[in-house]
Amino acid sequence: MPKLYLYAACISASFTILLTAAAAQDAALLKQAQEIFQPLSEDLASAGSDNARERIELGRSLFFDPRLTIDANMSCSSCHQPAFYGTDALPRAIGVKQRPHPRNAPTVLNTGALQIVHWRGDRESLEDQVAKAVTSPITSGQPDEKAITDRLCVSGYASSLFAAAFPNEPRPMTIQNIANAISAYERTLLTPSPFDAYLAGNQEALSPAARAGLATFINTGCVACHNGAGVGGAMYQKFGVVEDYWKVTGSDPIDKGRAEVTKDPADLYVFRVASLRNVAMTPPYFHDGSVATLPDAVKVMARVQLGVNLSDADTGDIVVFLKSLTGELPANFATAPVLPSGAVVARFPQGL
Amino acid sequence: MPKLYLYAACISASFTILLTAAAAQDAALLKQAQEIFQPLSEDLASAGSDNARERIELGRSLFFDPRLTIDANMSCSSCHQPAFYGTDALPRAIGVKQRPHPRNAPTVLNTGALQIVHWRGDRESLEDQVAKAVTSPITSGQPDEKAITDRLCVSGYASSLFAAAFPNEPRPMTIQNIANAISAYERTLLTPSPFDAYLAGNQEALSPAARAGLATFINTGCVACHNGAGVGGAMYQKFGVVEDYWKVTGSDPIDKGRAEVTKDPADLYVFRVASLRNVAMTPPYFHDGSVATLPDAVKVMARVQLGVNLSDADTGDIVVFLKSLTGELPANFATAPVLPSGAVVARFPQGL
Repeated sequence: MPKLYLYAACISASFTILLTAAAAQDAALLKQAQEIFQPLSEDLASAGSDNARERIELGRSLFFDPRLTIDANMSCSSCHQPAFYGTDALPRAIGVKQRPHPRNAPTVLNTGALQIVHWRGDRESLEDQVAKAVTSPITSGQPDEKAITDRLCVSGYASSLFAAAFPNEPRPMTIQNIANAISAYERTLLTPSPFDAYLAGNQEALSPAARAGLATFINTGCVACHNGAGVGGAMYQKFGVVEDYWKVTGSDPIDKGRAEVTKDPADLYVFRVASLRNVAMTPPYFHDGSVATLPDAVKVMARVQLGVNLSDADTGDIVVFLKSLTGELPANFATAPVLPSGAVVARFPQGL
Repeated sequence: MPKLYLYAACISASFTILLTAAAAQDAALLKQAQEIFQPLSEDLASAGSDNARERIELGRSLFFDPRLTIDANMSCSSCHQPAFYGTDALPRAIGVKQRPHPRNAPTVLNTGALQIVHWRGDRESLEDQVAKAVTSPITSGQPDEKAITDRLCVSGYASSLFAAAFPNEPRPMTIQNIANAISAYERTLLTPSPFDAYLAGNQEALSPAARAGLATFINTGCVACHNGAGVGGAMYQKFGVVEDYWKVTGSDPIDKGRAEVTKDPADLYVFRVASLRNVAMTPPYFHDGSVATLPDAVKVMARVQLGVNLSDADTGDIVVFLKSLTGELPANFATAPVLPSGAVVARFPQGL
């Protein structure tokens, strides 16, 4: 064999070895990812009810209906806007009558995949969250159940909508059923993403850069908290394990987190680990929206949680990976329902 | 011929005469309607620009973007909600910082078919309306152009979006171009309805009840003002020709209408004639939302404008006709755009 051919054969063999090594690495990464994360499952959307369809449709209408709130000018969708992937682009939400909310509005997308509700875990379930929101002074302003159901009657919500959703109840128009319906709707708001296709075995669903970012995300230690179907949302963690968070984020005021709920000093500065699904679409970041961009948020996390000063390159890779967690907006969220068209408050004409 | 057959033949002949008479009446009604009204034309949606598509898309994003306003919590779509056919179901709109608007929010649907902008005609064009809304203390609260364009820059509106829509301008991000883009978008929001199909010659597009209502609508005199492509929106008229409007609607305060704009006593209590397109979907009614239901609004109009006390039956017929003016929501209105995801206001992390 002439020297040249031999040389070429060697290069080819090295190439094959390199390629095989890369393929093995890719396969190992996928296997590792499949152990850490779970794809979104349609099962999460189940309302667990014989009248799921009717409940979901009722819940969708209620979610978009400002007539639920005291001045009839804010709905769930005011702070959880489709245009911002279920958030409001604000550091902290602004409630009814311009009342400030103490924390950032988390997205309603994929809430069915989360085990903990709210930043401080002070809600027992999604149903509990909605029920409390519907009478909260900040998010609703309505004083009691009667004020809300009276408004729904005037607004043209025929009791038949509630009757269809809750057929076995003699008086179905209650806060509890409003909560049941809106929760049933919210559970349908799943956004499967390229990362889910990857977890299902399609390696090409992620670009090489995104896979590099995934490897960095795993190896840096982010997955200690950001794991499971929500890529977060399943556990509590102190914000600022290594360094006080507010010294880096500039947060003001300093939120004591879950300690204010449990009264346990061990819960000082503890919050729910945020789900990272659609995180690229939902700035600003953290419980108080104190950080504006995703690269900065990634760096803050690495530094205050893990004591790692991430390079710009590693940060960039992780951001590319995080963008693979963006799914399409569900059609029943992107498109507003046509609501019963009754007016809220109006004087009646005289003498007709 | 036996008597029985002769009898049957007579009945049949009478029937034919009756049917022919009914058909002639139907044809006459259609002809009359075609003289009074015009169907919506796609020409109305024209933005009159070489970059119409880019302008419309930019305008759609801006329309739904709360970052245009002072606290970044209200957008055009807050008072012109898809879920309420471009209105807010309130008597009078509530603006930024909970500031009350003096009048009812009219729908943005089919505004391209209207010749007069705003209740009192105090805007020269749709462009003028948007430009003033973008800096109004009630609808925006932003002090000047710089505050608005700075916010759009921070919000991730790449100047390329503006550059694509206004390619011949060195500095395209201006209030005037925001107004041009939003107006271009609003002009596309046409809702052809069964009545348009009827005007095009398809009599079956209206039910017999709706046609009876149309005849009553014409014969009662409503069409003196409610005519043309907008079924209104083309002229001014005093509200309360026969009787002071507030004595019937209970309006408080009493709005002097266009007289406050022109300073002409002849314009006292004069308003733009409302377009009746989608009127069934947009209660409450009149410039101050003082009347809650469509049948009541029809009766008020007949009484104070025409001196007619409409029967419940005639009112019901007219309402059936008015429902034929409801079209489908345009897809680019019903479905929210995904907005550039930049956060509005956030402190920057320290020392990264």
